[in-house]
Amino acid sequence: MTATGKAFTPKNNRPTGEGGSKKTWIGEEVSRREDRRLLTGEAMFAGDMALPGQLHMRLVRSTQAHARIMSIDISDAERAPGVRGIITAEQTRHLGSVPLEDLGYHEEYDNIEDFSHPVLAVEKVMYVGQPVVAVLATDAYLAEDAADLVSIEYESLPVLLDPEAALDREIQLFPGRGNEGARIEKSYGDIELAFTNAVHIIEHKYVTNRHSGVPMEPRGIVVQPDRARDTLFIWGTVHVHDNRRIIAQMLGLPEVNVRMKHAEVGGNFGVKGGVFPETVLVAWAARSMGESVKWVEDRVEHMVATSHAREMVHKLELAVDTEGKILGLRDEIFHNHGAFFRQAEPLVSDITAGIVFGPYRVPNYEAVLHAVFTNKTPVAAYRAPGRYESTFARERVFDLAARKVGISPVDFRRRNLLTADDLPWAPGIEMVHEPYHFDSGDVVQHFNEALQAAKWSEWVIESQQMRAEGRKVGVGLGVLMDKAGLGLFETGGVEVSRAGRVTVKTGGSSVGQGIETVLAQIVAQELQVDPEDIDVVHSDTELIPDGVGSWSSRSTVLAGGAARKAALVVVDKAKRLASEMLEVDPSDLELVDGHFRIKGTDSEISLYEIAAARDPFTARLENDEPGLAADAVYVNNLMNYPYGVTLVQIELDPDTGGHRILKFFTSTEAGQVINPLTTRGQIIGAAVQGIGGALYEEFLYEEDGQPITTSFMDYLLPGAGEMPDVHYFVTEDAQSPDNPFGAKGLGEIGIIAVGAAVAAAIDDAAADGGHIDRLPVTPEQIYNRFHGSHKG
Amino acid sequence: MTATGKAFTPKNNRPTGEGGSKKTWIGEEVSRREDRRLLTGEAMFAGDMALPGQLHMRLVRSTQAHARIMSIDISDAERAPGVRGIITAEQTRHLGSVPLEDLGYHEEYDNIEDFSHPVLAVEKVMYVGQPVVAVLATDAYLAEDAADLVSIEYESLPVLLDPEAALDREIQLFPGRGNEGARIEKSYGDIELAFTNAVHIIEHKYVTNRHSGVPMEPRGIVVQPDRARDTLFIWGTVHVHDNRRIIAQMLGLPEVNVRMKHAEVGGNFGVKGGVFPETVLVAWAARSMGESVKWVEDRVEHMVATSHAREMVHKLELAVDTEGKILGLRDEIFHNHGAFFRQAEPLVSDITAGIVFGPYRVPNYEAVLHAVFTNKTPVAAYRAPGRYESTFARERVFDLAARKVGISPVDFRRRNLLTADDLPWAPGIEMVHEPYHFDSGDVVQHFNEALQAAKWSEWVIESQQMRAEGRKVGVGLGVLMDKAGLGLFETGGVEVSRAGRVTVKTGGSSVGQGIETVLAQIVAQELQVDPEDIDVVHSDTELIPDGVGSWSSRSTVLAGGAARKAALVVVDKAKRLASEMLEVDPSDLELVDGHFRIKGTDSEISLYEIAAARDPFTARLENDEPGLAADAVYVNNLMNYPYGVTLVQIELDPDTGGHRILKFFTSTEAGQVINPLTTRGQIIGAAVQGIGGALYEEFLYEEDGQPITTSFMDYLLPGAGEMPDVHYFVTEDAQSPDNPFGAKGLGEIGIIAVGAAVAAAIDDAAADGGHIDRLPVTPEQIYNRFHGSHKG
Repeated sequence: MTATGKAFTPKNNRPTGEGGSKKTWIGEEVSRREDRRLLTGEAMFAGDMALPGQLHMRLVRSTQAHARIMSIDISDAERAPGVRGIITAEQTRHLGSVPLEDLGYHEEYDNIEDFSHPVLAVEKVMYVGQPVVAVLATDAYLAEDAADLVSIEYESLPVLLDPEAALDREIQLFPGRGNEGARIEKSYGDIELAFTNAVHIIEHKYVTNRHSGVPMEPRGIVVQPDRARDTLFIWGTVHVHDNRRIIAQMLGLPEVNVRMKHAEVGGNFGVKGGVFPETVLVAWAARSMGESVKWVEDRVEHMVATSHAREMVHKLELAVDTEGKILGLRDEIFHNHGAFFRQAEPLVSDITAGIVFGPYRVPNYEAVLHAVFTNKTPVAAYRAPGRYESTFARERVFDLAARKVGISPVDFRRRNLLTADDLPWAPGIEMVHEPYHFDSGDVVQHFNEALQAAKWSEWVIESQQMRAEGRKVGVGLGVLMDKAGLGLFETGGVEVSRAGRVTVKTGGSSVGQGIETVLAQIVAQELQVDPEDIDVVHSDTELIPDGVGSWSSRSTVLAGGAARKAALVVVDKAKRLASEMLEVDPSDLELVDGHFRIKGTDSEISLYEIAAARDPFTARLENDEPGLAADAVYVNNLMNYPYGVTLVQIELDPDTGGHRILKFFTSTEAGQVINPLTTRGQIIGAAVQGIGGALYEEFLYEEDGQPITTSFMDYLLPGAGEMPDVHYFVTEDAQSPDNPFGAKGLGEIGIIAVGAAVAAAIDDAAADGGHIDRLPVTPEQIYNRFHGSHKG
Repeated sequence: MTATGKAFTPKNNRPTGEGGSKKTWIGEEVSRREDRRLLTGEAMFAGDMALPGQLHMRLVRSTQAHARIMSIDISDAERAPGVRGIITAEQTRHLGSVPLEDLGYHEEYDNIEDFSHPVLAVEKVMYVGQPVVAVLATDAYLAEDAADLVSIEYESLPVLLDPEAALDREIQLFPGRGNEGARIEKSYGDIELAFTNAVHIIEHKYVTNRHSGVPMEPRGIVVQPDRARDTLFIWGTVHVHDNRRIIAQMLGLPEVNVRMKHAEVGGNFGVKGGVFPETVLVAWAARSMGESVKWVEDRVEHMVATSHAREMVHKLELAVDTEGKILGLRDEIFHNHGAFFRQAEPLVSDITAGIVFGPYRVPNYEAVLHAVFTNKTPVAAYRAPGRYESTFARERVFDLAARKVGISPVDFRRRNLLTADDLPWAPGIEMVHEPYHFDSGDVVQHFNEALQAAKWSEWVIESQQMRAEGRKVGVGLGVLMDKAGLGLFETGGVEVSRAGRVTVKTGGSSVGQGIETVLAQIVAQELQVDPEDIDVVHSDTELIPDGVGSWSSRSTVLAGGAARKAALVVVDKAKRLASEMLEVDPSDLELVDGHFRIKGTDSEISLYEIAAARDPFTARLENDEPGLAADAVYVNNLMNYPYGVTLVQIELDPDTGGHRILKFFTSTEAGQVINPLTTRGQIIGAAVQGIGGALYEEFLYEEDGQPITTSFMDYLLPGAGEMPDVHYFVTEDAQSPDNPFGAKGLGEIGIIAVGAAVAAAIDDAAADGGHIDRLPVTPEQIYNRFHGSHKG
């Protein structure tokens, strides 16, 4: 595969703290600094850790989807070679379950903590893979051998797998509480009136099935206790501050006694971001035993115990007038959370209910989402959670509507997409307690430009010609809107060292997305130094006492905003000191190449020299802070809204059910691109995962709740051979007014509409009037479509 | 031995932030929290560290006192088993020498950096023990074996050992620069006029010989590199912030890339406080090789390579009038620094020249100090540096003066000690750039009370009676004044955790002196919680980004001041939040048992509950910082001046030169005792070390500069069997006005006058008109005194 895209023209017309003829780093193609250590093997992952005397943990996981635990016999395991300890719920039940985030998001739900995930299963198991017993041994293999000797007697209970069936309450996973963990309702306008006035009402049910992020590196946690100080050092979590807070809370420790250390993250995509029962267990075991404990899951465990995602049913009803103008949209959603709420949930449910309408002029809206439990692995966020699923459903029902009104899918969009005149689009709902406020842009204009850039009309003609030649080729599109930048605040620090280097500290997480490179560019621009002179540190509570982390395509805006804010304070202080040291008025100084220079002269002093002059004693004598450094908190509870379109041309093979994507094109309005190379990486990566979810990936279960896709032999991932060339198109026409860069988050946009576009293209290729309403589309479905046993 | 002392009556009348009926912790006998981990073996020292793949460093040290290095042959060592690397000055000379502190103290000296200590010897060696080559191997024993195979050819150079001879410039250790590293002159009044007006002029030369702190734990450093982040983690330094700054500077790293980790310190007494060449070398080696490196010195190395102390010559001239009133004091001092200036020097020289006059009404003063180099181990601070030596000299010459005037030593003191009327005594000189400003008290009154408390007149009569019976018993006294609290500022933080614990972060160092306990008391008092609910963390640049450390009896005042300041901010914030949460005016609240309570009700909220309410998101939404925490910097460049007297009754054995201290009494004015137990510990420990320096300890050299006291077989330390019972007396009559506790530093006072008092007691016991002018007093000297070959 290859990827091509528009060459960005950096604009950099955002205001900065220092005027003048600045060197530009924002918008430049700066190579990813992360790759140096990642590609040379210098990077250290939790799995690379080796601490003196460390014990290895192996979990005995439930083999039953729903069962009562009748007895646990650990006697053989205790006698096995190398075993140092065996942990059951008897020891851990006092820890309770992993608390759901109580940051104000959950106030509206009743006793939602009842649905949180216990550290080890207490009395019964709820899904295959749930941790029941932990074995600690001197060697990972001895731990695994001993775990096999643990004997657990179960009494089976009836199994619930289907999300819609969960409302029936025949099987109650949480007796007395039913199986609905939360019901989330969001609406605006007068939805009843909209349907009363409708000329056409289109109803359809859409299903997205389970798949998830499956990063290259499975989860791994290493915990080292300091007995004398009752302190834990922990490697391997992604959102270190969240994990610290919750581990400290569960273990009854002050947060300062839980010190999250930096380890590399080998892929996240959301699925590693939360706080897992296993993490708490490793921490508790290390503290209790006074020994270092290491736990690294294997791939089979990963497939059943790391968070799943995506399984949703959308029952859509769309009201349109005779011209195809949307009057109202109604959705009833069943979100299958599996057996428990993960720590941050039902956040994904909340987002889903708040965004089904997309970038359209939907005047009246109502969504009711049932966050339900079944005997499957718990779900959590995975790249564009709630958007991938709801965009599939919405775009598909819009295709149906276009057909019903008798216009093309393109025209249907043109008539309903938001224009500049509609903005700001703030229908008065909130998403995860942050206001929905679509701030800037013109979606129709971008849509038209994108179709033109892609030469969409040629795709259509070409497909028609090929179909006329007997080939099964079709095209499809999906329009997308993302919301990016949740999470209120982020921290950042900038420290200029006399050593001639600048350190940027960020509360964001570097999970492969390139944020270190982007932050270096942002700070380089303000300090007018080379990004190569900047180090970026992250995911380390010792250096960064507070922070939020990277999720929700938030880091460029929030971590970038914090780093920039700190950089501006540093520049201000440096200017003040330079003015004193050079004995000139600050207004006579300009910042050039990391030096404050007296304008029109070659008299100057570097930021590094200024930093050196502020040793702690000299600075304190002058009632100043030492060094040249600042920390900042950037607060922004307005999300930003990138939008775009994804276009697919696909060819089907009626004889095998096979398929080949001939053309793939995706676009976005970015506001301001900080780095075209990381943007390209995000778009390609998202395309791969979007195609995976559309055509390959699915976690499947037997009727008794046994998972049957527990390895990459069964769970199919697209490889390079399956991937089309990715063409992309990025506009920077509508800077977000709500952040200093005007940037919109780009981490998820590339995945959102892939399912919708692929499905539409397959329908077009099959040309049989069928309508795909379920993802992924399997070869079997395609084959059956041409051989009569499935209607499409 | 036992110790008894006055039972303190806690006063606690210092102003605090919160009024009302507070529970009192300051002044209480709170047990040392440090002892739990130290006595149970939980404490982790650098020597306990074991990092995966760590290499062990062994130094090849100079066997010559002064010699040119002709060749170094490492070929045999390189081939030795387990050897991974050999480092010579070829690799390290670019690092330069350990820079002397450039914090403004050294501006007045010319090119003082020429005298700093190189990392490894370049071209020539200057003392036996100087590091020349480093061997790194997989095992400490293999490293030692390989080090023995390194062959160094030397060409001997003439050796200089005597500090007075150093001014002759016959042998130049730093060619072209002579051997005087600095000449320090301090004076006030009109010294010439004083001597013109003198009735009696007493001149005498006094010598204190080399001894030092010899802590139980020798030095040890462990460095772990993080290659991907070019970061070093370092365990084993005492003053972590100083060490970080200088290591970073020498290695060209930003300070944030040098992370000093907590390890226990097994005794310091000043001698481990600086930055040593070995520390820099271990850091450089770990970074260069990309492997963890551990270095722990053995006792022989410790005796020749860790800092020595005390070697000084004082040539005193005292001018008095006919009544014995002091008119002027002149001193010429030769301070033998050994071969190089240690990192913080000539700080001890500066202190010495600024304090010879002690707590006396000395109207005219002049001191000229020669900080000279010889071919001995470099010296640095050791408990009461400059005070032990100069007090010995001053008190001895005062004894001579008393004899000359014809009054008792006690009367001589009474006539000249400062009274309340003399204060503040600020003669206009500085010590280490901080103003000399003796602020509060009445030395005569304390002196009289102390003599009465000790029943001094009974000691005198008893001695006279025993001498009349033929026993060689005598009494002696020494009056002391300390200066405490140098170093401008200290940092502190207080963090209240929802876990029901409070963490105090301090820039001070816990080196066995009990500062953790004291800080817990100080913060407990302000927060009105139990000290048991407080954790104290220190010596960890990750938790405490800035700080100074513990030396100069500064920690109670400076670290305590910072912790208290932070505690008051926390209490203020908690009160504001409590007022909001309980919906009452702040003035209606009182702080009781860690709760803010509405006065006259039982409605209350705990500090822990308040902390829990300030999660990061809620707090940031309200434009507040999360949690209940504050950091503070406490700046105080006024020293404080504890004073007191030490009394000794000794019996000599004329037949063997042996001695037995029959009575030992020491006193101090403390301003405010924070903890009587730690005060007791400081007094006893200082007494032991003071007696060691007076009667046992001395680093001796052959004429060619070979040290002959390189083990505890030759370097004698007093054991429990040699120690008398220690009686002490502490007054709290004169609180220091310059700090919030009124406290005066108590870490060093107990050692200062021991040498003087012991010497006077021996003279009194010998009753032969002799006058001891050299420490330590050896059995040989005592024996000779009774057998004619030495005059006393």
